[in-house]
Amino acid sequence: MDFDAVIHNGTLVTVDDRSRIIESGWIGIRRGMIRAIESGPPDMPPPSAHLTIDAAGGIVMPGLVNTHTHLPMSLFRGLADDLPLMAWLNQHIFPAESRFIKPETVHWGTLLACAEMLLSGTTCCCGGYFFEDAVARAVVEAGLRAVLAQGVIDFPAPGVPVPAQNVAHARNYARRWKHRSHLVTPSIFCHSPYTCRDGTLTAAKAAADELDLIFQIHVAETRFERDQSIQESGLSPVARLDRLGILDRRTLMAHCVWIDAADMATMAKRGCTVAHCPESNMKLASGIAPLTAMRAAGIIVSLGTDSCASNNNLDLFGEMGTAAKLHKVATGDPTALNAASVLKMATLDGARAIGLADLIGSLETGKQADIIVIDAHTPHLTPLYHPNSHLVYAADGADVRHVLVAGRQVVANRRLLTIDVDEVMDRVNAIARDIRSRL
Amino acid sequence: MDFDAVIHNGTLVTVDDRSRIIESGWIGIRRGMIRAIESGPPDMPPPSAHLTIDAAGGIVMPGLVNTHTHLPMSLFRGLADDLPLMAWLNQHIFPAESRFIKPETVHWGTLLACAEMLLSGTTCCCGGYFFEDAVARAVVEAGLRAVLAQGVIDFPAPGVPVPAQNVAHARNYARRWKHRSHLVTPSIFCHSPYTCRDGTLTAAKAAADELDLIFQIHVAETRFERDQSIQESGLSPVARLDRLGILDRRTLMAHCVWIDAADMATMAKRGCTVAHCPESNMKLASGIAPLTAMRAAGIIVSLGTDSCASNNNLDLFGEMGTAAKLHKVATGDPTALNAASVLKMATLDGARAIGLADLIGSLETGKQADIIVIDAHTPHLTPLYHPNSHLVYAADGADVRHVLVAGRQVVANRRLLTIDVDEVMDRVNAIARDIRSRL
Repeated sequence: MDFDAVIHNGTLVTVDDRSRIIESGWIGIRRGMIRAIESGPPDMPPPSAHLTIDAAGGIVMPGLVNTHTHLPMSLFRGLADDLPLMAWLNQHIFPAESRFIKPETVHWGTLLACAEMLLSGTTCCCGGYFFEDAVARAVVEAGLRAVLAQGVIDFPAPGVPVPAQNVAHARNYARRWKHRSHLVTPSIFCHSPYTCRDGTLTAAKAAADELDLIFQIHVAETRFERDQSIQESGLSPVARLDRLGILDRRTLMAHCVWIDAADMATMAKRGCTVAHCPESNMKLASGIAPLTAMRAAGIIVSLGTDSCASNNNLDLFGEMGTAAKLHKVATGDPTALNAASVLKMATLDGARAIGLADLIGSLETGKQADIIVIDAHTPHLTPLYHPNSHLVYAADGADVRHVLVAGRQVVANRRLLTIDVDEVMDRVNAIARDIRSRL
Repeated sequence: MDFDAVIHNGTLVTVDDRSRIIESGWIGIRRGMIRAIESGPPDMPPPSAHLTIDAAGGIVMPGLVNTHTHLPMSLFRGLADDLPLMAWLNQHIFPAESRFIKPETVHWGTLLACAEMLLSGTTCCCGGYFFEDAVARAVVEAGLRAVLAQGVIDFPAPGVPVPAQNVAHARNYARRWKHRSHLVTPSIFCHSPYTCRDGTLTAAKAAADELDLIFQIHVAETRFERDQSIQESGLSPVARLDRLGILDRRTLMAHCVWIDAADMATMAKRGCTVAHCPESNMKLASGIAPLTAMRAAGIIVSLGTDSCASNNNLDLFGEMGTAAKLHKVATGDPTALNAASVLKMATLDGARAIGLADLIGSLETGKQADIIVIDAHTPHLTPLYHPNSHLVYAADGADVRHVLVAGRQVVANRRLLTIDVDEVMDRVNAIARDIRSRL
């Protein structure tokens, strides 16, 4: 056998340095890694392999990277919408979290989110929540790649009733998962500047640095947060974090809606990265992040869906389309954020944002075989002039036909191979009935 | 037999006057019409019928109504993106139209658009183009309901080389189709105030009135159009049309992005309706229409995708999600445009906008059986707290499992029954190869 697996008869959208698109080609995989990327006519017999996947003329591309989500919150998908932020949080989300979040519910909610992501072409995600051991175990079971953080917040939280223990709790989780699975990279996630004191922020960042991990934090999501920060400290959220020494290349900031030019200059100088979540920011009416300005400043901006509680799905194809269109209308410039740029945000820039660009984010020899195959033989993807255009403006997650993570096929013909999706939905429905009857 | 067809074991989202949601029920259909809507437990044996459709616990709702599109332009899906409006039109779309639009290409492009719409839950559309006889024949072949107009523009157009004949051409088409098919209602479509002289506008409107038809027109899509109108005539596009006596209850205006309070007061007073196309307006960077203000003024606003050339798909589920989120962020108010309102825009208000509210737009006895069934047994629609929320914020067109138009099943288990989709895609791909090689 030449390879463990071969994917052939597809248009290869590589998202490599040269943004190469190979109109007809094949990919050879050995030991979970891409070993060959070659052009070849559709009718060429593929090299021999244990597993041969026929892309059937579809699009073959790197798996999508969702850099901001909270997996177990799939339990709260559509629980409450169309509400003011504080009413949504205080009357619905926080009560539901405090009463229903425990290791067992986190397990099923995470599996549901993983099923949704894999079936819609996301092969790697990044985020944080509570009971993160249960999250990480479920992610490994589902076969997804992920950067997963235990959340840190200066309030009593699910599984962390005593806030003084929050950093130790997160650090212990991270140590446990540091070398435990090739799929899960631990991380530490401070909720936000406004819910964590200075000492918590610096201690959490020190723990992340000690273990060489990505440090995540929500920053400047709302105007209220920005105004309150300036009122209380005289500093913007970004400036305050910078003063604390929190910002560097291993800091991933979610949202960054209410930032100004000085903030962006600081972020660019420190090399910190951003998870842009346009649909969540729109739905919660938080605002429109200055994406084109951030990119112009040299900041690496990736794409995230945020949780199912505020989106309400995890389809990164939809998020790409929204991002491309939103920033055109926000800037009044139809040339802003073209399809190739958005595609890179959702793949290679996502990998860079979470410290995994050596491993994933593009189709290149030597990288992990995190690969998805799109079924292009469908009315809404016909005709096909430019693959990038279809991926951003016309496709959605349901067009994903095959998915590989680290060379292992986890979705075949739109069916998930790793976990029993029917059982997962049954379990989540039972939890939701309980939430609905008791909340 | 009690009925010709019965749909049972579903959650019925009626979009009726009381916005009733029947958690478990069935619908009886006779002679193309809804004759019974009843609640009943999932395990209840349905009434006898020639055709029994098991909704399998999914959501049963009125088919979506797309009130603004140009069907044959599916041929140009993704041909050119991310360009300034004038470069997009003058260097790509207009040359492609002038060289490749003829009855045969219009036929295949329309069938492709119909296939996409039916498969994604749209049972009725409204719009206009050229060679409209070919469009209408293809729509009847596909089994879709539609309000279809021959386009009128004061320039040489495909099939209408002499502009002086444009209104007569449109009027003749409308007369031919006035009583020809129960699926197609003819209409007349003046391209816009800036491409039609006063005399053309009034003659076209008179022809529409004479035949009791909906009159369609693009209005105030871009800031340039609005500014130019004021500069040339001292009047906004809406004010100019009003001065010409064009605006009344049978006038459907697409876009209406650049309108002010006075325009809205005029529109409300005249009772004209609007086709709001958020994704097209975003992608072309035209702007954000004042949707909440229009609705507050009492104007009936419906939803349209616009053509595949500027969107780039015809999925009205995606359009609903975009509309709901866009106007929250545009107004800074997360309570703006809730899920139920958006759902109504895409169904009953769509039917009202195109003059078909007596026939379609809601699940009510006496209305035509234009019904879709959504498969809710899928990770991204689990759990289910509120059907409206899922339909607007989490579902997409690929979740549509069954579709009926006028009581006839046209989609079963995601397969189109009326036309050969593979042949349609083959034909369109051949046309696209020709376009790509010769343009």
